[in-house]
This record gives sequence, structure tokens and C-alpha cells, in this order.
Amino acid sequence: MPDILHRIGFKNVAPQAVFDALVTADGLSRWWTEGTTGQGSAVGDVVHFQFGDRGFFDMKVVAVEMPTHLRWQVVDGPAEWVGTHVNWDLRQEGDYTILLFRHEGWKEVVEFMHHCSTKWGGFLLSLKDLLEGRTASPWPRDVHIDNWCDQVAA
Amino acid sequence: MPDILHRIGFKNVAPQAVFDALVTADGLSRWWTEGTTGQGSAVGDVVHFQFGDRGFFDMKVVAVEMPTHLRWQVVDGPAEWVGTHVNWDLRQEGDYTILLFRHEGWKEVVEFMHHCSTKWGGFLLSLKDLLEGRTASPWPRDVHIDNWCDQVAA
Repeated sequence: MPDILHRIGFKNVAPQAVFDALVTADGLSRWWTEGTTGQGSAVGDVVHFQFGDRGFFDMKVVAVEMPTHLRWQVVDGPAEWVGTHVNWDLRQEGDYTILLFRHEGWKEVVEFMHHCSTKWGGFLLSLKDLLEGRTASPWPRDVHIDNWCDQVAA
Repeated sequence: MPDILHRIGFKNVAPQAVFDALVTADGLSRWWTEGTTGQGSAVGDVVHFQFGDRGFFDMKVVAVEMPTHLRWQVVDGPAEWVGTHVNWDLRQEGDYTILLFRHEGWKEVVEFMHHCSTKWGGFLLSLKDLLEGRTASPWPRDVHIDNWCDQVAA
């Protein structure tokens, strides 16, 4: 099955600091969506990501090995996302913490998957901005990459 | 075989204007790499993309339907890239020209593929910046997403 893949590095940021931004609503709300609620630090936890009145994702933590691995299962949200998994693998490499990101298990290569691939890249750059001390861009201040973003923000 | 996918929209930009930025060295050098030479507007043309002394890609045009479709075959460059194809599909949708991008035919999901997925997203945002009148970020002024970019720029 096709996957969305990304690799990004966080300079002079420890793996634990990256991890913290992935497992708490406070951390997640600073780079992905301000509408984040819940907790995501233990297996079974569910985090809710709301994007105004336009949509949401519910992610259940199905694996966690602090601070190197986190795996979410999408349990509610757009039909194309439900049942897919989001994997976060972290390791230190010199001055960097390297993130290998994989959103896997898409049933088919739909146009929405293309969109989500580019959006994930943008949000990961937002996470990088946050952790390296620049201004991050969580929803609703995210970069509008295409007309679907305009609809979401309308 | 796994693919890199992206979707991006260019607001108030005609498909032909996007296409022009994909088939001439002048256009390509403004958003991907300043080290672009050659011509890429006809089947059989080869465009050379140089990134200083750190590497290059040679792309052969294998399909062109102006201004909606362009397909490159990678004929020289990193081993992981040679033999892969890069597809550009454009269409108008309201105020936008929508690009569906697909870099397909990777033999296996290597870490370099994760890196290239994120880099392609960044360069497509550079193309969007160029076409929408902002400052683009071609190499060597591209966003350094990870430690591999630092090595490339060293």
C-alpha cells in the first residue's frame, strides 16, 4: 500500500524535546492545529485534532517508545484516513535529531493523498520552526498550498 | 513501487505560466537550482540540474503535452534516481492551476526517498512563491530541512 514519507532534521534539539511536541496537546497545538485536545503519551490514549468546523482527526496511540518511536492509528476523521497509521521514528545524528515520518496504509493513491503529503511536509517544517526557535504555523495560520486549504479555511 | 506524491495550487496563475517554469532552463533555475542548463520542451531533450560540486540530475523529456502534462526520465544522477520518472500534471480549477506531482519508480523505500519527498515539497513551494510573485528559494538558497542539506551545501 502507498505511503507518505518525509525526513526532517531538528538542529541542536534533543530527541526528547521533539517527542514532547508529539505527545501533549500543548506541544501539538503549537505546530499542527491549535484545536488539539487530549493526551497522547501512553498506548490507548486518543488525541483529537480539530480544524475549526471543517474537519478533524482522532489518533489513537498504538505504540510508544520514548523518545524514539511513536505510532498512531487514525480512529476517526476523513474516510481515506481512518485505519491508516502515522509513524514517528526519531534518532540523534550529530547536532541533529532526525525524524523519519511515514503515514502508511492508504487504500489507494487518491488526489487527497497527494495533498496530504505536501501538507504533512509543511506541518513538519512548522514543527522544525517551533523547535528551532522560529515562528511556527499551526492551523489556522498554516501555509495554504492549494484550493483545498482555502475551502478548509473558508 | 513506491512513489513521492504532492499536490499544490498556483493562485491566479495560468497553466501555461506554470508549464513555462518547467521546460526552460531560465524558468527551472528560478525555483529548483540555479545550476540548470539545457532545454526541456520537446521529447528527447535533456535538462541538467547541477547542485554545485555536490551532485546533479539529468532529466530526459519522455512526454510533453503543453500545458497539461510533462514527464521526465532520470537518465543520470544518484543511483536511487536513475530510471525513475517525474510526472507533472496540470489543470485549471477556478482561480487555481492545480499541479499533481508524482516521482515514481523508486526501487525501494530508502531513507533518501523520505528526504527527497520533503525536499520536493519545499521546491514546489519555491515554484509557488515564484509564480505568485514572492521570493523563491532555488538551490543554493533552499530551505535546509535536515543534515543532508548541510552536507550538500558544505
